[in-house]
Amino acid sequence: MDVPRYDLRAGVPDLSAFPRLAWLATARKVLAAAPDHLLGYPDPRGLPALRAALAGYLARTRGVTADPGHIVICAGFAHGLAAVCRALRTVGAGTLAVEAYGHQAHRDVAVGQGLRLCPVPVDGMGAVIGEASRADAALLTPAHQFPLGVTLHPRRRREAAAWGGVVIEDDYDGEFRYDRQPVGALQALAPDRVVYAGTASKSLAPSLRLGWLVVPPRLLDAVTAELVAGPSGIDQLTLAEFITSGDYDRQIRRARLAYRRRRDRLAMMLNGQELRGQGLRISGIAAGLHAVLDCPRPSRERDIIARATAGGLALDGLEPYRAPDELRGTDGERAGLVIGYSRPPEHAYTTALARLRAVLTQ
Amino acid sequence: MDVPRYDLRAGVPDLSAFPRLAWLATARKVLAAAPDHLLGYPDPRGLPALRAALAGYLARTRGVTADPGHIVICAGFAHGLAAVCRALRTVGAGTLAVEAYGHQAHRDVAVGQGLRLCPVPVDGMGAVIGEASRADAALLTPAHQFPLGVTLHPRRRREAAAWGGVVIEDDYDGEFRYDRQPVGALQALAPDRVVYAGTASKSLAPSLRLGWLVVPPRLLDAVTAELVAGPSGIDQLTLAEFITSGDYDRQIRRARLAYRRRRDRLAMMLNGQELRGQGLRISGIAAGLHAVLDCPRPSRERDIIARATAGGLALDGLEPYRAPDELRGTDGERAGLVIGYSRPPEHAYTTALARLRAVLTQ
Repeated sequence: MDVPRYDLRAGVPDLSAFPRLAWLATARKVLAAAPDHLLGYPDPRGLPALRAALAGYLARTRGVTADPGHIVICAGFAHGLAAVCRALRTVGAGTLAVEAYGHQAHRDVAVGQGLRLCPVPVDGMGAVIGEASRADAALLTPAHQFPLGVTLHPRRRREAAAWGGVVIEDDYDGEFRYDRQPVGALQALAPDRVVYAGTASKSLAPSLRLGWLVVPPRLLDAVTAELVAGPSGIDQLTLAEFITSGDYDRQIRRARLAYRRRRDRLAMMLNGQELRGQGLRISGIAAGLHAVLDCPRPSRERDIIARATAGGLALDGLEPYRAPDELRGTDGERAGLVIGYSRPPEHAYTTALARLRAVLTQ
Repeated sequence: MDVPRYDLRAGVPDLSAFPRLAWLATARKVLAAAPDHLLGYPDPRGLPALRAALAGYLARTRGVTADPGHIVICAGFAHGLAAVCRALRTVGAGTLAVEAYGHQAHRDVAVGQGLRLCPVPVDGMGAVIGEASRADAALLTPAHQFPLGVTLHPRRRREAAAWGGVVIEDDYDGEFRYDRQPVGALQALAPDRVVYAGTASKSLAPSLRLGWLVVPPRLLDAVTAELVAGPSGIDQLTLAEFITSGDYDRQIRRARLAYRRRRDRLAMMLNGQELRGQGLRISGIAAGLHAVLDCPRPSRERDIIARATAGGLALDGLEPYRAPDELRGTDGERAGLVIGYSRPPEHAYTTALARLRAVLTQ
């Protein structure tokens, strides 16, 4: 496996913070008590204990309107997205609106299930949902646009809630908000048309492959049928107990504090005298695990990435996140760096920041 | 959850025999040693450690020709089957031959991925692959036909190996053979055209959602792309260590001994004086976790199932496994019971057998 020495790419949490001992202790507790039948083929919607625990958790922390009967468990976001896209096809949808900047892997999943993509611009108020009138459904990141980092403006939220199609709300880092009260899930405004999607990939570890969808009743059977296979029943029981016992909240509070400190250090460094003169502007730091550093031009983005790579620092620009040319939409090209501050273990963060600074001031 | 008091349906192992403590101890060992990066997004083909452990295990116990690079990890058989069916569609396949008796759920998965079904008869030598000339691919259970219990005859094995299309070999209970040397996997005869599929669902527990495919090189990329999400990386590491340490072999030896004793008791009871006069004939007991008790006519099958259900004994007939009328093939209707002897915990097996006897002699 090719692991770079320093890594400031977005999308992966600090894996050294995964609570290995607490997770194992919970698995032991759960396995000691579980009746045998829970070791059989799991309910394809997910185990009732986990769906009940998530219903409570999501209502409390994200304002999600969630009956346990409308929650289905999946093996991470891509798995859930694929099932939703196929379900949308079976009910006649043909076109999915996507934000003009986002994960290529997610666009690939949607295309792989037979949907056409229709990109919508993202401006300072978030995705311009009004531009998606040709689409049957839309994939959005309302809490913290990925990768641009903007939070969907209240007016746009209302537009998205009133929009005619199905919205897939990717709440990939909804737990991590630093500057004010959490922005609740868009799903609460239109639970009959929004599919809410969350995972344990940022809060615990991607390796667990644990995710969940809150699905409008009319899509529930179709989505469940398309999931085919979900995560281990034992892992589902373990997560249910982890949530119910309060361990999950404690882990997220710890992580939020640690990431907020990292964000503050990053912002302080980037706002320093030395860099301000260069036209590099930081944004998207109110939430999440990454920031965007706008560059004055694409060539500067490419130069910085090349220098970073040469120096053993993994770093992404905006370019790989941009929807392909023919799909781009109307917002033109932006140049910048997507700086993920969650990935290095705590002891390596100081050096990673120093490397970044060196690359930027070189 | 609706759990019947006594359960002689096929398809689920004795869940009370799952080695909870050994599994947890292995998970603890693995998590204590795993570097952080193994908690990240798993390799979509599955973790290298598990693919290496399985390559050795499958070559040794099933004669499978398996380079770790050709193994992909999936979340159980249905998940793997769905991915293979979609991959077959992308390379132009349209029709899948299925055995005239088999799991409806598997037929549904294939149809759900856009394949047409073409049933082939199953006679005393197993599936009549020669009848599948219209099909592009075939789904077979060579070691122990499910549910009829016959082992594919050596001549038919050679025919299947020489057949033009892709064969999906569902080796669902290949570890459990009682009467002679194990019948090796069909895959060894034609590794460039047979997709071998196995799981830990019978050897450990279905709840784990751990399965594997050995895929011919030309289908490998397509199958991997269609898997989207596999099982937890931690569970993959745990199974790898469970195999490497010898715990997996020990568990299977223990289970094989216990199931063989159950099979012997079932056969003794069914071959007794009292039942022989009724035209009930047992077959399919050389291997696996179930037997077939042929009935003279369909009405007798239905009567027995109804009486069993009324008495709190869950039991299946052949009827739910039969491909739908329009798909049936040429072998006509058989009537019978599919008696799974693996499901009750050890302490309940005697009573379950007594119930069955009472139902049959009523």
